[in-house]
Amino acid sequence: MNTKPLRVAFQGEPGAFSEAAAVGLLGEAIETVPRPTFDRTFAAIADGAADLLMVPIENSLAGSVLRVFDLLLDHNLAIRAETVLPIAHDLIGCPGATLAGIRSVESHPMALAQCERLIAAHPEWKRIPAEDTAGSVREVLARGDISCAAIAGTRAAKHYGGVVLASNVQDNARNFTRFLLLSTDHSPVAGADKMTLVTRLAHKPGALLSALQPFARRGVNLLKIESRPIHGCPWEYQFFLDVEATSPNALEQAVDELRRETQEVRVLGLYPGARNNPEESAASTGRKP
Amino acid sequence: MNTKPLRVAFQGEPGAFSEAAAVGLLGEAIETVPRPTFDRTFAAIADGAADLLMVPIENSLAGSVLRVFDLLLDHNLAIRAETVLPIAHDLIGCPGATLAGIRSVESHPMALAQCERLIAAHPEWKRIPAEDTAGSVREVLARGDISCAAIAGTRAAKHYGGVVLASNVQDNARNFTRFLLLSTDHSPVAGADKMTLVTRLAHKPGALLSALQPFARRGVNLLKIESRPIHGCPWEYQFFLDVEATSPNALEQAVDELRRETQEVRVLGLYPGARNNPEESAASTGRKP
Repeated sequence: MNTKPLRVAFQGEPGAFSEAAAVGLLGEAIETVPRPTFDRTFAAIADGAADLLMVPIENSLAGSVLRVFDLLLDHNLAIRAETVLPIAHDLIGCPGATLAGIRSVESHPMALAQCERLIAAHPEWKRIPAEDTAGSVREVLARGDISCAAIAGTRAAKHYGGVVLASNVQDNARNFTRFLLLSTDHSPVAGADKMTLVTRLAHKPGALLSALQPFARRGVNLLKIESRPIHGCPWEYQFFLDVEATSPNALEQAVDELRRETQEVRVLGLYPGARNNPEESAASTGRKP
Repeated sequence: MNTKPLRVAFQGEPGAFSEAAAVGLLGEAIETVPRPTFDRTFAAIADGAADLLMVPIENSLAGSVLRVFDLLLDHNLAIRAETVLPIAHDLIGCPGATLAGIRSVESHPMALAQCERLIAAHPEWKRIPAEDTAGSVREVLARGDISCAAIAGTRAAKHYGGVVLASNVQDNARNFTRFLLLSTDHSPVAGADKMTLVTRLAHKPGALLSALQPFARRGVNLLKIESRPIHGCPWEYQFFLDVEATSPNALEQAVDELRRETQEVRVLGLYPGARNNPEESAASTGRKP
């Protein structure tokens, strides 16, 4: 029996939300492999440093992670699973720190912006931008100054030994990120009912319409659609689709029919859709909408 | 004759790309009104501080600006025009600074990430994240330390009296942002051939297909489509569409037909599309793709 743990690469520092997504889906026994950028995360399998990748693909407030879409096109990886994580921010300080004693707060500008209400209520706090949420916790703990706090997820507080001074401090409780598990393994996944594909269509009236017909005809649900201009081809567009059906056969037949119309169809994965609908996950955490 | 200049609010600090977009579209005679957040930018007309707004709606590398989509839905404003700006970053220092003497570089993490090649070539530089690109130039100039540089647009260098140490330092020359000019004026715009609309569709197979048919039937081009889940309505989706036709009548007739199928159609603007296709603009600047 092979007892070597699965190695899963992610972008960010230890304690990042992507690491939490990997552990949440695969369990604590995995080995997580932090990488500073998405490009280096995607290189981790070829480098022999990782067996799988866990990457964010969209956030309910910030939208699609376009760099990940680009890298999915550049690499021959398959989506094996997805997981949706509520993004809850905590205010994290050093042991001995108190909320009343805080004078500065640091984090990624996106995280600071998502916690405007808390920060506006404390005009005595200096805002300090950082390059990474988990990294800002590492910095605060390394300095050991009890007047400094960082904003990041609970996992980062635990990882660096920080104290949670206030939890769920984000303005909008409906902050979710969808993550994809990627592998070089293209074999069928049990229970697959969701497909992510990309197709290239001519920029002419009705092109998208006829591309959608094979799916509609088979009762396939369209979950997500996004168009992107193709660099260097001014009048052609790429469409990223997430579709879902009770039978994977319906999905495969629809794709086969689409291929007869346009040569440029690529299936990025056929995998089990996360049953945890974001709205339902929010309800199950007991937080108010 | 009214000689009071038009006041245009934008998000960011003086010297920001949104300010450059406003001046580029409306001329140097306007008065630009900086606001720290998108929410406060959208409040500027009701506050009596501005006549118009200039806001980014999508970036070719980072994607749609979702907060602006949300605010468009919350406010009763009309899109009057659009403009596409190439986002070129400069390395900016104090008077007397030289490239060889730089020891730190500061900017918004997104701008730092877009200039990885330059920064990686200078391991002696300390990376300093900031909340705003133009604001990082203001900071560097205020300190007057010739070993410090910021990354921002040329407009910010001029505004704060900075020196451009290296220009066009972004890794990817194809970095464009599309901006929208917004007004409370809903009267027809001359030369309108592009429409932005949002529609709410039931999550059932074929719903999007039938919503697109009125457009395809009239030879209307679909330029952009993006689906977004609706908060609180797990199985309903909003679709944002950009469509274009040689005749505005075709657009209006298609919308009328769509309204007969779904009550939830809202036209956010019928305006002249920017003729400057991003790819063509890149070519016209003489930069290599």
